[in-house]
Amino acid sequence: MQKTIIKAYGSLASNKDLKPLDIERRSVGQEDVKIEIDYCGVCHSDIHTVRNDWKGSVYPVVPGHEIIGRVTKVGAHVKNYKVGDIVGVGCLVDSCHTCSSCKNNLEQFCENGATFTYNSADKHMPKQQTYGGYSTDIVVDQQFVLKVPENIDAAAAAPLLCAGITTWSPLRHWNVKKGDKVGIVGLGGLGHMGVKFANALGAHVVMITTSPDKGRDAKTLGAHEVLVSKNQEDMAKHRGSFDFILNTIPVGHEMDPYIGLLKIDATMVLVGAVEPLKPFHGGGIIMGRKRIAGSLIGGIKETQEMLDFCGKHNIVSDIELINMEDINKAYDRVTSSDVKYRFVIDMASLKN
Amino acid sequence: MQKTIIKAYGSLASNKDLKPLDIERRSVGQEDVKIEIDYCGVCHSDIHTVRNDWKGSVYPVVPGHEIIGRVTKVGAHVKNYKVGDIVGVGCLVDSCHTCSSCKNNLEQFCENGATFTYNSADKHMPKQQTYGGYSTDIVVDQQFVLKVPENIDAAAAAPLLCAGITTWSPLRHWNVKKGDKVGIVGLGGLGHMGVKFANALGAHVVMITTSPDKGRDAKTLGAHEVLVSKNQEDMAKHRGSFDFILNTIPVGHEMDPYIGLLKIDATMVLVGAVEPLKPFHGGGIIMGRKRIAGSLIGGIKETQEMLDFCGKHNIVSDIELINMEDINKAYDRVTSSDVKYRFVIDMASLKN
Repeated sequence: MQKTIIKAYGSLASNKDLKPLDIERRSVGQEDVKIEIDYCGVCHSDIHTVRNDWKGSVYPVVPGHEIIGRVTKVGAHVKNYKVGDIVGVGCLVDSCHTCSSCKNNLEQFCENGATFTYNSADKHMPKQQTYGGYSTDIVVDQQFVLKVPENIDAAAAAPLLCAGITTWSPLRHWNVKKGDKVGIVGLGGLGHMGVKFANALGAHVVMITTSPDKGRDAKTLGAHEVLVSKNQEDMAKHRGSFDFILNTIPVGHEMDPYIGLLKIDATMVLVGAVEPLKPFHGGGIIMGRKRIAGSLIGGIKETQEMLDFCGKHNIVSDIELINMEDINKAYDRVTSSDVKYRFVIDMASLKN
Repeated sequence: MQKTIIKAYGSLASNKDLKPLDIERRSVGQEDVKIEIDYCGVCHSDIHTVRNDWKGSVYPVVPGHEIIGRVTKVGAHVKNYKVGDIVGVGCLVDSCHTCSSCKNNLEQFCENGATFTYNSADKHMPKQQTYGGYSTDIVVDQQFVLKVPENIDAAAAAPLLCAGITTWSPLRHWNVKKGDKVGIVGLGGLGHMGVKFANALGAHVVMITTSPDKGRDAKTLGAHEVLVSKNQEDMAKHRGSFDFILNTIPVGHEMDPYIGLLKIDATMVLVGAVEPLKPFHGGGIIMGRKRIAGSLIGGIKETQEMLDFCGKHNIVSDIELINMEDINKAYDRVTSSDVKYRFVIDMASLKN
């Protein structure tokens, strides 16, 4: 079988716009699933990687790790997928399968280095980086392909593969349950999924935001209450009352006000700020035995559980569908937080 | 029964040395135990309170919350203590007994405000602060009195009441167990107890310190290995390998190097730095789902369990016994970390 040249969109340097590119996909191996991509979500990580904000970007960068498509071919050893199935691919396309993280279904923390969907060394294509979902087709090991419930909108399901699992995983790992008072800090792609999931898990959901407007929006998404963090009096009223806080703020920020909201033994999980945080006061966590933790996407098993939950509860993202050629404008709008709540690329626009 | 005037040592202002004072103790109520104090440990918190570093000090301040003595009188309702018993009093002398923290044996987090052994409003003596163990006698509600195992040295047991429980509680709460790789950061009053407890719990104990000299000392206390944190190469070798880190550094400090040492899902607990920490990188806890938590002393039940464990395993602090009149010199030496590892006041020196 031959490698295939396909159409994609990518960037050639950190200061360049994305533009059409031809890239190579491997032929379908025995363990592989080939997918024709229908939709791909636009994640803030895509922009960070294109712009080399986290360093380590190798060009061309073809972003995209919120992929929904249809199976067009399967390898001889593929048992669980057949041509025509609606499937998803998230942030991971490979891992070692042998380390303790992989054995514990935490492929995202593979100790030998997970292969991320873009900008990772590609095990199958020597000297090439992995290329993501801003492309017409992708070939992925069957263990990293996910079943997408047929009852949910395929385009709006795309962001579940990153924004969804990023917020689902900590809510589940920290056992958020019916009756818990849960704060969601920040209302963007991540935060809006946090609100939906926490609501569906039966929690009392409080949107914590600087903006009363966002608070109103959060209520339509499932928040039961809004706490405007600039209002000192309201912050004082909620002091020490939260069982769990999911903090989706994407940049370094003051943490003391949020730590003060936690109950004794409660946890705040950071999922957004992959950068230096502002100093916080040690006394804030010492008094009350509180916890600050991090969380990164989720493993494949947990991602499938999240998709199944979405099928059962009819949960998808709120999206704005765009054409591939509008991606650079979309990046500018994401950067200025001007999207409710996730752009998804209609990949038909790349094929035509 | 009458209130009693007793001898004590305290400070009249934040810039004053400690000096002899007469203070009043309440008469022995039905629930009370009167204790003649034999030994009192010198905790860094004593100094912070005397010097008003944390604000809120009300003078005179009579410090001391690592108290060992003998029962001299008991109230009519006291069942578990009799005259002559060797007992201890730690950081707490009262709490509300009704809130959810108290009901969960976490009196240190009493939601209506625990009464600390010194510098708290005294429920029994209107308009007076509580006065601590730098004194000849103390009267304490029986529920806050602890049994001290008879086989351990009474003077060296005093620091168990604060330094001991402060390090014991997080090791137990986070379930440190046989075979775990446990790092103890900082070797002072807290750190040296952390080393002893982690060793007795069966962990592989690594002393993490800036000073090779302290590393050698830690080995005599029970550390199996020493990691000099200034040595980048050694820090890299230990990266991602610790199940638990107990961080006893008493001041704000860089946390990223220690976070990097944690395994996936592992926790670092801060017990020392009741002040602003330096900024840490959100990515450090997001990658690996790591946790930073705080811990504050322990509840009464847990403190008794710790003392019983110390009796069984013959664990006490390493101390330097001083006379009451040497307290100001001792404070200077504590401030310059010149003590191995805890000063304990021989309270006979105050009585004579």
